[in-house]
Amino acid sequence: MPARQPPRGGTAASFAPPIMEARRWLDGIEFPPDRPLLNVSQAAPMDPPPAALRQAIAEAALNDPGAHLYGPVLGLPELRAEIADQWSTAYGGAIRPEQVAITQGCNQAFCAAVSAIAAAGDEVILPTPWYFNHKMWLDMAGVRAVPLSTGANLLPEVQRAAALITPRTRAIVLVTPNNPTGLEYPAGLVAEVLTLCRNHGIALILDETYRDFDGRDGAPHRLFADPDWGDTLIQLYSFSKAYRLTGHRVGALVAAEPIVAEVEKFLDTVAICANQLGQRAALWGLRNLAAWKADDRAEILARRTAVETGFAALPGWELMGAGAFFAWARHPFALDATTLARRLVAEAGVLLLPGAMFLPEADPGSRDQLRIAFANIDRPGLRTLFERLAAFRP
Amino acid sequence: MPARQPPRGGTAASFAPPIMEARRWLDGIEFPPDRPLLNVSQAAPMDPPPAALRQAIAEAALNDPGAHLYGPVLGLPELRAEIADQWSTAYGGAIRPEQVAITQGCNQAFCAAVSAIAAAGDEVILPTPWYFNHKMWLDMAGVRAVPLSTGANLLPEVQRAAALITPRTRAIVLVTPNNPTGLEYPAGLVAEVLTLCRNHGIALILDETYRDFDGRDGAPHRLFADPDWGDTLIQLYSFSKAYRLTGHRVGALVAAEPIVAEVEKFLDTVAICANQLGQRAALWGLRNLAAWKADDRAEILARRTAVETGFAALPGWELMGAGAFFAWARHPFALDATTLARRLVAEAGVLLLPGAMFLPEADPGSRDQLRIAFANIDRPGLRTLFERLAAFRP
Repeated sequence: MPARQPPRGGTAASFAPPIMEARRWLDGIEFPPDRPLLNVSQAAPMDPPPAALRQAIAEAALNDPGAHLYGPVLGLPELRAEIADQWSTAYGGAIRPEQVAITQGCNQAFCAAVSAIAAAGDEVILPTPWYFNHKMWLDMAGVRAVPLSTGANLLPEVQRAAALITPRTRAIVLVTPNNPTGLEYPAGLVAEVLTLCRNHGIALILDETYRDFDGRDGAPHRLFADPDWGDTLIQLYSFSKAYRLTGHRVGALVAAEPIVAEVEKFLDTVAICANQLGQRAALWGLRNLAAWKADDRAEILARRTAVETGFAALPGWELMGAGAFFAWARHPFALDATTLARRLVAEAGVLLLPGAMFLPEADPGSRDQLRIAFANIDRPGLRTLFERLAAFRP
Repeated sequence: MPARQPPRGGTAASFAPPIMEARRWLDGIEFPPDRPLLNVSQAAPMDPPPAALRQAIAEAALNDPGAHLYGPVLGLPELRAEIADQWSTAYGGAIRPEQVAITQGCNQAFCAAVSAIAAAGDEVILPTPWYFNHKMWLDMAGVRAVPLSTGANLLPEVQRAAALITPRTRAIVLVTPNNPTGLEYPAGLVAEVLTLCRNHGIALILDETYRDFDGRDGAPHRLFADPDWGDTLIQLYSFSKAYRLTGHRVGALVAAEPIVAEVEKFLDTVAICANQLGQRAALWGLRNLAAWKADDRAEILARRTAVETGFAALPGWELMGAGAFFAWARHPFALDATTLARRLVAEAGVLLLPGAMFLPEADPGSRDQLRIAFANIDRPGLRTLFERLAAFRP
């Protein structure tokens, strides 16, 4: 009788979730009461949504039978319509409800987008540092992630992207504001990448999970103002960060109807539908939390300023990018960044992620770069963070 | 400038969700008040969960901050432990919490299981009629679905399955009680398929979405009583049907730890985690609704009896299978079953699904077989259903 073979499925081509690996670094380490752990590893709100939104969810659970039953594969019609309406206004373009799909979180929106346009053997261009779940999905789907390395300014270069396009290329992915670097991509750059994609008949997948925390006022790009946006653009969004609904798993995808029809197959098979209470929560948030969200954004932007100030005073460190929930920095020590990150847990009570988790193995940045997810840390906490980093001796 | 290419991703290899195609048959048809539509197309509870469970969800939304935040990728620890505990008792085996993963519904559990063990180019054996979302996922993943045709008794034959195994085969899938046929697979048959799989070093994916409605008392199979079950078995479960939580999207997967580690990669990438309120609802249901569930099962079994009685009196029709939420039948008309199904909408006010939606194109059953999802129809409604079918003239 043959021994059972080890798993060798699509997932075997990918790696274990880095966040979880980092969480395991905490095992067995005690954090004294006067120096509790500062966890800057993950972009997850630590507080629940505002009380009024929690109340709205509770009322739906009690009084809305549809909140417990299957809904349309592509999402609650009112939510799709609200997104189409608010996006049309915010981006100065025309987006119809039929061009919106609701997903079980924005990671799933990415998976659906890729599956709609690429199959095993195809290629997708990902600027580095990349968001590791994007890389993981491409690995699992047998789609080659082609790294587009960025320079010291962390911005993808259009010429360099163009040189990577082959007949197998199906899309370029941009994340703005960027995870992991925090960079807000200039509107002109995003427009140039759209043109490049259009000229090659490939898609631009634009992940705007952090759009509500963009430091710029007004639309961060003008792509939707182009009446032909649907020939190239697939936009992704998350309700997790802006409305503190991480636990509800609701995201969105905006694309032309032929793409949405493919996404519908994927969602029917992988999800059936996004959960109904979460969709109602997202709708309530869109309709009622604009002012609350603006205050939240102002606080995050103030924290970004504190991070910039903190790095400016930190000897030898270089802040390469800061925005959304993230700072991306270069450390000054003669240590591999992963070793440094592990030592910072025990010696400084700080959990941050090394650049290696967001970079191809051979990338030199994986040696000396780090990501700090600062959004959860209030300003006194950020002062403490920089004191601890300043006190660290390699 | 090249025109944008049509979508040609993984999803292009699959088909549009049949349920939605069937729903479109309703467009433009008016159902008179004295003959409302009888919808027997989908196995979805039409009523919300019991009031006490809705109350528990509302309380969690109001008072449990964790219900709104990210949780562990593999699920709420208490829910994994409760499943391990209840399954160990129900199946007379030893299942540990670490062998349980919580998914965003049982469809996703299937996708995760396949991705953990098969990659593009591999093969998975699916008895026919199959559950169409299983076929759709295999298509999208580039995994060849190898149909295992069943005879008049609708049961897969072990010898025939053995003959289909090749070096590329990674698993056999069984659904019991079966969707779409309703068949409850004999424990001996399930055990033989496990042995076949074990002898070939491939997995048995056992989808028990409808286990709570099995007409047999006691464990429906003894696979978990085998201490080595983990070398072959991957079991799937859904909270949607038994607890009327379809809209919450919570399912489960039980497998050996190396499989669960692969599933964790998939879930981290596609889901991050199942939604937290739904997981709390599932846990509350497991802990508090055993008696309610038993009553619900008794009612469904009484409806099955009514379906058997109804078919026995229906001239020319043959009931081939009945159980769980489904009946599978052969109609007597000189009509293609899809044509018949479409005509039944307008002429009888009945929406059921033709066998073609669950069968490979060439299968003769796709001409004269039909699925009826009877679980939502009370006994007076079932009498009406059979009156309408009896009155239909082709």
